[in-house]
Amino acid sequence: MTTSTVILPGDLRLLARSGAFNGATAGVARGFVQANLMIVPRSAAFDFLLFCQRNPRPCPLVEVLEAGQVTPLCAPDADLRSDLPGYRVYRHGELAGEVGDISALWQDDFVSFLIGCSFSFEGALIDAGIPLRHVEQQRNVAMYITTIPCQPAGQFSGNMVVSMRPVRSCHVARAVEISARFPQVHGAPVHVGHPEAIGINDLMCPDFGDSVQVADDEVPVFWACGVTPQVIACQSRTAFCITHAPGKMFVTDIINR
Amino acid sequence: MTTSTVILPGDLRLLARSGAFNGATAGVARGFVQANLMIVPRSAAFDFLLFCQRNPRPCPLVEVLEAGQVTPLCAPDADLRSDLPGYRVYRHGELAGEVGDISALWQDDFVSFLIGCSFSFEGALIDAGIPLRHVEQQRNVAMYITTIPCQPAGQFSGNMVVSMRPVRSCHVARAVEISARFPQVHGAPVHVGHPEAIGINDLMCPDFGDSVQVADDEVPVFWACGVTPQVIACQSRTAFCITHAPGKMFVTDIINR
Repeated sequence: MTTSTVILPGDLRLLARSGAFNGATAGVARGFVQANLMIVPRSAAFDFLLFCQRNPRPCPLVEVLEAGQVTPLCAPDADLRSDLPGYRVYRHGELAGEVGDISALWQDDFVSFLIGCSFSFEGALIDAGIPLRHVEQQRNVAMYITTIPCQPAGQFSGNMVVSMRPVRSCHVARAVEISARFPQVHGAPVHVGHPEAIGINDLMCPDFGDSVQVADDEVPVFWACGVTPQVIACQSRTAFCITHAPGKMFVTDIINR
Repeated sequence: MTTSTVILPGDLRLLARSGAFNGATAGVARGFVQANLMIVPRSAAFDFLLFCQRNPRPCPLVEVLEAGQVTPLCAPDADLRSDLPGYRVYRHGELAGEVGDISALWQDDFVSFLIGCSFSFEGALIDAGIPLRHVEQQRNVAMYITTIPCQPAGQFSGNMVVSMRPVRSCHVARAVEISARFPQVHGAPVHVGHPEAIGINDLMCPDFGDSVQVADDEVPVFWACGVTPQVIACQSRTAFCITHAPGKMFVTDIINR
């Protein structure tokens, strides 16, 4: 952790580009905004941008690139085709492969969306004295597909994915206040307590990530999750899209406030 | 003014639909959100949505409709083809006509954008004891094309249009605080004082609207203006678009907070 916290975003991207780093980015280059990646062909780009505009909690846009562009303003020396530690390719809603570089797949009509990631507010929660079990245990956060419908847009429709963090009752209000300050990264929770009310029947069986125990003095707190657009794209049987591989985010040059 | 303040949005829209009301909407149905309208064909819709996403100050989105749809969620009994008091049609950046109804022009691939309007925060400023001269004088607000570049997006590029309100020095901070609470309607000012720094050489010669005097104890305060997208569409020589006619906004059912 000591070494991983001092690496800068540009260096991390170069390591990913060369293939020397292909791991998860949680806790790496801490203090810099990390982003989910979604790439769709231009024919689907209006519908997807409209989906993000209508669903800002799960899909807070950090940046949208012009068709064919691979270098975002938020990282002027980056190449989105190579600078993430891993990518997933989907065809008609099915996973078609996981690769470390998408240069060979790239086409001039591809539109890249960078979507905020909850890593950005987790640091602020920890700094405020609110412990996060999955970070302490160095595991992935628990994520669940809910029954909360997203606002559909064109070809994209489906339910919201949430991440869950157990929070002590005395800390819930503060956790809400702090995360609400980060509207670019999902903002305030969408649900507090009562998982069954949003279709989660067993907290110990997340749809993605790792399960964590909720202690007797804790409440499960649910935030909208950036995995939502991937699940929506699959459920909507989008003809073609590319995303980051789970946990392997794009690290930007933007400093968390 | 007494009668105009009691009319409800749905009644106003019906009057506009029948042609009985074809005037400006400032001060009418006060307390309800009014919106600028921009309609572009689907082929230009991604670029325009991206332009709004990149320029939220001049283009705060109230709602974006699916291609072909004419009834927004923010007014479930409305028809955007008839319920505004006036429309302007532009072809290749030139004004091609001003009409009271666009039903005959409508095509299934038209995408409608509703964009926030500063009328929404003017009520809050007046309620806070900050007088607005153009409202007192029942004139249109003064608007200027500046040298502040918008972030371009695809085919859309150009400079920001601002509206100017003279504010007494003792009220400037409060005017900033109040308007900042309305991010859906342009938010805080983009510039305070020194018009020449943003390319405005003569405050008494606005590009749109009516001129107002700035008194000796006042400062000109500039807010991003919803006329920006119309000017951008013209400067970018967009093949085809329809907008509301100046001052003749779409009145929604949304209550100003």
